[in-house]
Amino acid sequence: MTFSRSSSITFFIVALFTVLINPAISSRAASFIKLPRSSIASYCESWRLAAETNNVGPWKVIPSQCENYIKNYINGGQFDKDYDVVASYAIDYAKTVKVGGDGKDAWVFDIDETLLSNIEYYKANGYGSEPYDSIKYNEVVEKGKDPGYDASLRLYKALKKLGFTIILLTGRDEGHRSVTEKNLRDAGYFGWNRLLLRGQNDQGKTATQYKSEQRSQVVKEGYTIHGNTGDQWSDLLGFAVASRSFKVPNPMYYVA
Amino acid sequence: MTFSRSSSITFFIVALFTVLINPAISSRAASFIKLPRSSIASYCESWRLAAETNNVGPWKVIPSQCENYIKNYINGGQFDKDYDVVASYAIDYAKTVKVGGDGKDAWVFDIDETLLSNIEYYKANGYGSEPYDSIKYNEVVEKGKDPGYDASLRLYKALKKLGFTIILLTGRDEGHRSVTEKNLRDAGYFGWNRLLLRGQNDQGKTATQYKSEQRSQVVKEGYTIHGNTGDQWSDLLGFAVASRSFKVPNPMYYVA
Repeated sequence: MTFSRSSSITFFIVALFTVLINPAISSRAASFIKLPRSSIASYCESWRLAAETNNVGPWKVIPSQCENYIKNYINGGQFDKDYDVVASYAIDYAKTVKVGGDGKDAWVFDIDETLLSNIEYYKANGYGSEPYDSIKYNEVVEKGKDPGYDASLRLYKALKKLGFTIILLTGRDEGHRSVTEKNLRDAGYFGWNRLLLRGQNDQGKTATQYKSEQRSQVVKEGYTIHGNTGDQWSDLLGFAVASRSFKVPNPMYYVA
Repeated sequence: MTFSRSSSITFFIVALFTVLINPAISSRAASFIKLPRSSIASYCESWRLAAETNNVGPWKVIPSQCENYIKNYINGGQFDKDYDVVASYAIDYAKTVKVGGDGKDAWVFDIDETLLSNIEYYKANGYGSEPYDSIKYNEVVEKGKDPGYDASLRLYKALKKLGFTIILLTGRDEGHRSVTEKNLRDAGYFGWNRLLLRGQNDQGKTATQYKSEQRSQVVKEGYTIHGNTGDQWSDLLGFAVASRSFKVPNPMYYVA
């Protein structure tokens, strides 16, 4: 069955009119028309919560239908607000800690997606919808132009002011030490006590294992780790964990 | 300084006109006028994420301005969708576990706000905005009419079908045993292996301590705890933790 162009248009107008004058059809049609976008957003919201609460478990890429949702979450302001609230709770807690004068009251920070943002890489690679490309990622790291986050700068500076000893613990390799130091300073971070990077002996270890071992060493040296801030659960779990851990939102990738 | 009613109205109209004809003031006023609702929702969204990721730490009531937001979250469908996604990930994981024939492959469930919903109490008490009232709460528990969740019923039944041994571990007291058993059956749960309630010796312990000890005992008896599902971090953390933990959303209360 074929229609001429004008009869198609007439049919379309009659059909549209039928839909509009029938309240039952029109409300169903309206919800049908709205459904796809809102149900994708709703699913992606559920998925993001499941990822943030570590329910998803190991995952490699975000659900493909959520690329736009995650892009909007990151760029639209809600991510910044979410991080800001985390920073506020961290500062509130830090103020309750009795910091001694011996420099042994420590706070651990992860670097990537915690103090520095590799958003340049994620913008160019589908906000986590494309598989991780270590070569392209390291190109961004080696540029040393990663911006800091307003929230982490605020938290970092508040902790320094309160007298905490700052320990930076990153999955970045030793080879990235100098570019990392310069990038951190350019972004506004200063006065950390040590910067721990992955050495020869740490290759092949999971982040949880490597970071737990490093924290354990720090504790053996007499430090108390009051707080720990990271965007991955592998920054925060394992052993020698901090008294309080603060999970920075990151719906773009998962590191075991 | 006092105004008559009419001069107050004139002042108000002049002030409003001044605001409206000045683009700089008017755009600020517009964002000021729009700000409250969207910025409260945005803040409450941040707060809920911070609570779910355990960043808020111990908290007694939800932020008072978030009562409506939480009410809408719970009743508006998003909570159900969020729990459904958690259940799906739990089932996906459960299917990867090799369940033996000796009945020693266990899955632990919390009860309140995990298998059974005390929403009747929370509806009547501001969705977590009012301080916890144990007398009123226990009245709801003792009615034994708590409904189950679609998501937990789906997960529970899938686990039974896969051959897992189900262990129910609740903060409810021994005194609530029979009403709890009946309520669970009425809600559609069946065939659990044991129901562990707080006994005389468990009074005064934190949930984390009590639940860890109970899990530890279960492990000593030769069970492997593959999965654990609970709405509180105190259901999931501590020692003798499960291989995989599944955090059910609950923005209404916090149990240490």
